[in-house]
Amino acid sequence: MKQGIFITIEGPEGAGKTTVLKLIGESLKNLGLDVVLTREPGGIPIAEQIREVILNKENTAMDGRTEALLYAAARRQHLIEKVVPALNAGKIVLCDRFIDSSLAYQGYARGLGIDEVYSINQFAIEGLMPQLTIYFDIEPAEGLKRIKKSGIREVNRLDLEELQFHEKVRDGYKKAIEREKSRFFVVDASLPIEQVSEAVKEKILFVLKNN
Amino acid sequence: MKQGIFITIEGPEGAGKTTVLKLIGESLKNLGLDVVLTREPGGIPIAEQIREVILNKENTAMDGRTEALLYAAARRQHLIEKVVPALNAGKIVLCDRFIDSSLAYQGYARGLGIDEVYSINQFAIEGLMPQLTIYFDIEPAEGLKRIKKSGIREVNRLDLEELQFHEKVRDGYKKAIEREKSRFFVVDASLPIEQVSEAVKEKILFVLKNN
Repeated sequence: MKQGIFITIEGPEGAGKTTVLKLIGESLKNLGLDVVLTREPGGIPIAEQIREVILNKENTAMDGRTEALLYAAARRQHLIEKVVPALNAGKIVLCDRFIDSSLAYQGYARGLGIDEVYSINQFAIEGLMPQLTIYFDIEPAEGLKRIKKSGIREVNRLDLEELQFHEKVRDGYKKAIEREKSRFFVVDASLPIEQVSEAVKEKILFVLKNN
Repeated sequence: MKQGIFITIEGPEGAGKTTVLKLIGESLKNLGLDVVLTREPGGIPIAEQIREVILNKENTAMDGRTEALLYAAARRQHLIEKVVPALNAGKIVLCDRFIDSSLAYQGYARGLGIDEVYSINQFAIEGLMPQLTIYFDIEPAEGLKRIKKSGIREVNRLDLEELQFHEKVRDGYKKAIEREKSRFFVVDASLPIEQVSEAVKEKILFVLKNN
């Protein structure tokens, strides 16, 4: 049986992941390829319910480790119900965020430890790592600017704290990349969207050809 | 600051844990001891919400590893919000089920692997293991009989499957005990409740004296 290919997209908010993914998805479909675009929780009821617990604004007492375990649980269910069946059907799965988000955000930026967060995620995914991970690299200040471009207000203290946090997230991603360089393709996400999209598409087609 | 003592109670359903815990709790309180009786999710809203996802009857697609991660998440939150503050206040915490339930049920009986389930639980509890774990040992058939004693019907195929499962759970507990013998106190739960209760109380008082 033909086995599909599992590709994940990583990077901070404001890096343009969603827009680029949509463009690439369409463009690959136009080439006659069988593509599934997804992101956790991906419409999987159990993963949605877990996500609700994570995002519930009343849950201010939530501990960082509880949150990391919940993300791993939602990841597992989305993987089992959506990603694995698509791969078994020979499809190209493009998933917006996966294990590396947890390593960068919870493991590094929140200080839980990359190795420890990696370990609970390995319990969740049982070695089903992506064949390719595209990392959208952007200066945190630039990403933040993009997120905020719709709002008209001055930068305040919270924005600066946020900036520091996003710098930590970027450092976390860099550490994740150092661990497994061959899995990653780093794209300069500060370039115009069409250029980013073209670079990512070419990389994906190259990987598909050599799969 | 005086640090409390953390004691967990383990064993299958039908072993009389709840009844005995209640008796012991009262009896220790009568001795002037500051006791907290608890069990996960223990009234902690986040842990309750996680529990709802686990127990939701519509979630028939739930994968065993998703479930194990959710149990670990609920455990973490209950520990942080209820157990740790009580221990820091010098209290005796008696907790009905803890990590060993996950090892026996998910790790062994459900086949996820004791070491792997232990590892995600260590992420959750960060080494905060109980000083004492009381294991209520009972023949699975005897436990099942006790659960069913209120119903008047014959034993059917499902009961037999259930019996096999509970035998596996018991084997799982035995393996968990082998790993850390010194932490466990095994009580013969087939004895009359007063006798079980007395044995457990004596053991707890002994541990308190030597703490």
